[in-house]
Amino acid sequence: MSKQRVLSGIQPTGRLHLGNLIGAVENWVELQQSHDCYFFIADYHALTTSYADTKNLADDIRQAAIDLLSAGVAPEKAVLFRQSDVPEHAELHLLLSMLTPLAWLERVPTYKSKIEELKERDLGTYGFLGYPVLQAADILIYKASRVPVGEDQLPHLELTREIARRFNYLYKEIFPEPQAALTRFPALPGTDGRKMSKSYRNTIAISDTPDAIRKKVGIMVTDPERIKREDIGHPDVCPVYQYYKIFARDRREKAAKECREASRGCVDCKKELAQVLIEYLAPIHAAGRELEQEPKLLDNILKNGAERARAVASATLTQAKKAIGLA
Amino acid sequence: MSKQRVLSGIQPTGRLHLGNLIGAVENWVELQQSHDCYFFIADYHALTTSYADTKNLADDIRQAAIDLLSAGVAPEKAVLFRQSDVPEHAELHLLLSMLTPLAWLERVPTYKSKIEELKERDLGTYGFLGYPVLQAADILIYKASRVPVGEDQLPHLELTREIARRFNYLYKEIFPEPQAALTRFPALPGTDGRKMSKSYRNTIAISDTPDAIRKKVGIMVTDPERIKREDIGHPDVCPVYQYYKIFARDRREKAAKECREASRGCVDCKKELAQVLIEYLAPIHAAGRELEQEPKLLDNILKNGAERARAVASATLTQAKKAIGLA
Repeated sequence: MSKQRVLSGIQPTGRLHLGNLIGAVENWVELQQSHDCYFFIADYHALTTSYADTKNLADDIRQAAIDLLSAGVAPEKAVLFRQSDVPEHAELHLLLSMLTPLAWLERVPTYKSKIEELKERDLGTYGFLGYPVLQAADILIYKASRVPVGEDQLPHLELTREIARRFNYLYKEIFPEPQAALTRFPALPGTDGRKMSKSYRNTIAISDTPDAIRKKVGIMVTDPERIKREDIGHPDVCPVYQYYKIFARDRREKAAKECREASRGCVDCKKELAQVLIEYLAPIHAAGRELEQEPKLLDNILKNGAERARAVASATLTQAKKAIGLA
Repeated sequence: MSKQRVLSGIQPTGRLHLGNLIGAVENWVELQQSHDCYFFIADYHALTTSYADTKNLADDIRQAAIDLLSAGVAPEKAVLFRQSDVPEHAELHLLLSMLTPLAWLERVPTYKSKIEELKERDLGTYGFLGYPVLQAADILIYKASRVPVGEDQLPHLELTREIARRFNYLYKEIFPEPQAALTRFPALPGTDGRKMSKSYRNTIAISDTPDAIRKKVGIMVTDPERIKREDIGHPDVCPVYQYYKIFARDRREKAAKECREASRGCVDCKKELAQVLIEYLAPIHAAGRELEQEPKLLDNILKNGAERARAVASATLTQAKKAIGLA
């Protein structure tokens, strides 16, 4: 039986953080063991919201590649490439645009909320409205059968299926309908206790230095009811304890017990966590340093990835064009 | 001084008719003598309105190429290609989509009127709304300085200039603003007296046989006030006379005079016109037959055209991607 094909992308908007690592990339690293994986740096997608400020884009793309590779994406196991290196994404996007009703796009739940959320950016653009069409092209061009997504992405994936069905109905059965591989991971809180997210400036980057990690963990919010050292704590509402559950499973029972008894203070608890994270990230840092010293190697990995991706993408595009009558 | 670059395209929606020939293609044939011309068969554009019925598209594209070449477009003078053979159009379209406000597209005058006009086709699609973005990409990817257009296309060209300005402002001065080369030709009436147009089914195709031409001219409407043979005619309101003015300039004075005196009847007048058209189209027919017998030749012309177009288009795309930070 041939392996299931998996497609997933990540936007190059600043350094990868622990939330990305836990939420997406560690999942990728696992999937690449048993699936036919296509992972990409979604630089076109980054433009849908960041078209007006791209001065760091080239750097961000490079850093995203370094971060992914150091976190364990293996070019000999998965195809890693940048979206804009594979023109077939843009071509299929254009073809799919023809048959996608505007109403389908306007009713995507995240459409209006994101415009509101980022209202300083002026997202009333044609490209931002078409984001889900581009995402459909990304997935369908590889005929991917599984797409790792969070709950919030399910409407997008449903739209991809609708677009695939409409194409198949109008022309010819070309595209399988991709299924979600729901990533069930605990949402990682940022240093301020909200969801870790670049836009909240509450992230810990996987490339942060040990010093930066100590500082960021040092200012993390904890159980708001534990004001004095002698107060007993409530680990279940403490963001720091969430980290223990993920990054230090073997220490979490002890930490929780000591917190509840007030035999451990928050300062010490954070120091211990910082050390855990530093050790957790040490091999990732080492791999990142190697890649930074070999820019040619990185170029070659991405070039090779694009070639492998294009081999599949161009075959699908030819089928699609033929079905429409364009080839 | 280097030649000005001209860009123009035509949709492959059925055989080229006399209105296209007079309105666009004869203009192309003249321009190719003195300009650096890029002419294309706009097959992506055809999908914006015809995505739901493409069973004749492949044939139509081929026929459009045959018609253009037989009408005098010369591959050694102009670059002739099909749009979908040059993926850079789709790539630049995607990039430009990011910075094009929806409001610019929604206010294009033809947008709502065309949806109304073709309401049986369901044009409430993302691709139909983006038609002017694709047109901007078509023009800008060649940095064309002149675009032959009719009056009705001026708002589209203005939009192309706005998109070019916005790109140049956001990133870098890459795109010159294209200027209109207004084609001032008398609108050719169809056989029913309305503007000649495929959607009115009132066309005379340049590939129509002599018999078909005789039949179509035979049923053309004429001066509605000339009911009996003895009634005097009014050439200025007669569609047939419009044809004399364009295709038989040397005979038009005589025809007008005899019509006004009722010394010539409509039947004879049409017979003469049919003969004029048959002779006018004879060399085009001969060239068309040759091309139809050499499918390889046609393939090669289009392949070669696409290669020449891509050489220019990919250089522009690289500049644009670099300016944005994608390369």
